[in-house]
Amino acid sequence: MELLKQRILKDAEVLPGEVLKVDMFLNHLLDVNLIREIGKEFFRIFSSSGITKILTAEASGIALAFAAAEFFNTPVLIAKKGTHKNIGSECYCSEVFSFTKSVSYTMQVSKKYIDSRDTILIIDDFLANGAALSGLINIVSLSHAKLAGAGIAVEKAFQNGGDKLRGEGLNLKSLAVIESMNEGKIIFRDDDDKE
Amino acid sequence: MELLKQRILKDAEVLPGEVLKVDMFLNHLLDVNLIREIGKEFFRIFSSSGITKILTAEASGIALAFAAAEFFNTPVLIAKKGTHKNIGSECYCSEVFSFTKSVSYTMQVSKKYIDSRDTILIIDDFLANGAALSGLINIVSLSHAKLAGAGIAVEKAFQNGGDKLRGEGLNLKSLAVIESMNEGKIIFRDDDDKE
Repeated sequence: MELLKQRILKDAEVLPGEVLKVDMFLNHLLDVNLIREIGKEFFRIFSSSGITKILTAEASGIALAFAAAEFFNTPVLIAKKGTHKNIGSECYCSEVFSFTKSVSYTMQVSKKYIDSRDTILIIDDFLANGAALSGLINIVSLSHAKLAGAGIAVEKAFQNGGDKLRGEGLNLKSLAVIESMNEGKIIFRDDDDKE
Repeated sequence: MELLKQRILKDAEVLPGEVLKVDMFLNHLLDVNLIREIGKEFFRIFSSSGITKILTAEASGIALAFAAAEFFNTPVLIAKKGTHKNIGSECYCSEVFSFTKSVSYTMQVSKKYIDSRDTILIIDDFLANGAALSGLINIVSLSHAKLAGAGIAVEKAFQNGGDKLRGEGLNLKSLAVIESMNEGKIIFRDDDDKE
């Protein structure tokens, strides 16, 4: 997605430890117009998939999932992190190790809100090693819902999570795929899904 | 806001410990159409206030803040919980005690994204004792931005946080104010701000 790539080139910062900082438009200060365009692009890609719910992980996937859901006209289901008293005990859970924060956490979704009649689109802001996305896929699998695919804003391809999951058959579409960012220079992979 | 109150009466569950469970439409499974209407209502109330940014707390305020920001055409600024490696060290911070989870956490916003030129509207899903909202107000105060007010979806008035903050001069508008929910019966306060 050209708009997103241009914004990354203009504003994103490459930090030590292969960190791409995009908090000035994507996950701390949100550029609402850009995020709406990202939601529209996910709709363009997955509109014929019969999506009934969009699944995302709190917290930084929520705005993207909401923006997409406005186009799909479906609910958003948020996988909660940690143990939430108010969420009820009947949950589908995944254990996820966050490389960003160096901690494991539990991702959970109430069994009441996803079942075999659902066709799920997973949406998230980032894909690197694929741990969070694998956790979401596991929840969909446990629920026996159909997984239509996953839409990711920014994929760090050099951390290999995306290609591994594509190899396992996931219909994965990332709007900006970063091949490398050595010495602060961001190189994108060519789109496989042009506008 | 009649639409929200009717939805609470229809679907919300009152649980022991004065917990109002609204996760079936507001903060776990999101009813995108309802949340868009809530955003539109916040815009109706605060549209003349010159808002430059909407401030919310992760995670459950994000969708509401995003929906409102689409009407205001402003960015959303998300106060992050805990210590985020990628957020940078230059932050405005508040310590908040969560009664729901019985833990303290730090709420933080990068100093780069809020300053004295901003006019801030705070948006959140719930207001009970007011701890989270006070944390957000503190961040606005530290930044020297102007605080236009706060828009809350559901206020539990019997936990007194809202009236305390109104007494301190906050322009606080809650769309559904619950006076009591004894024995599971939800009683709303009359609106002070009719459509």
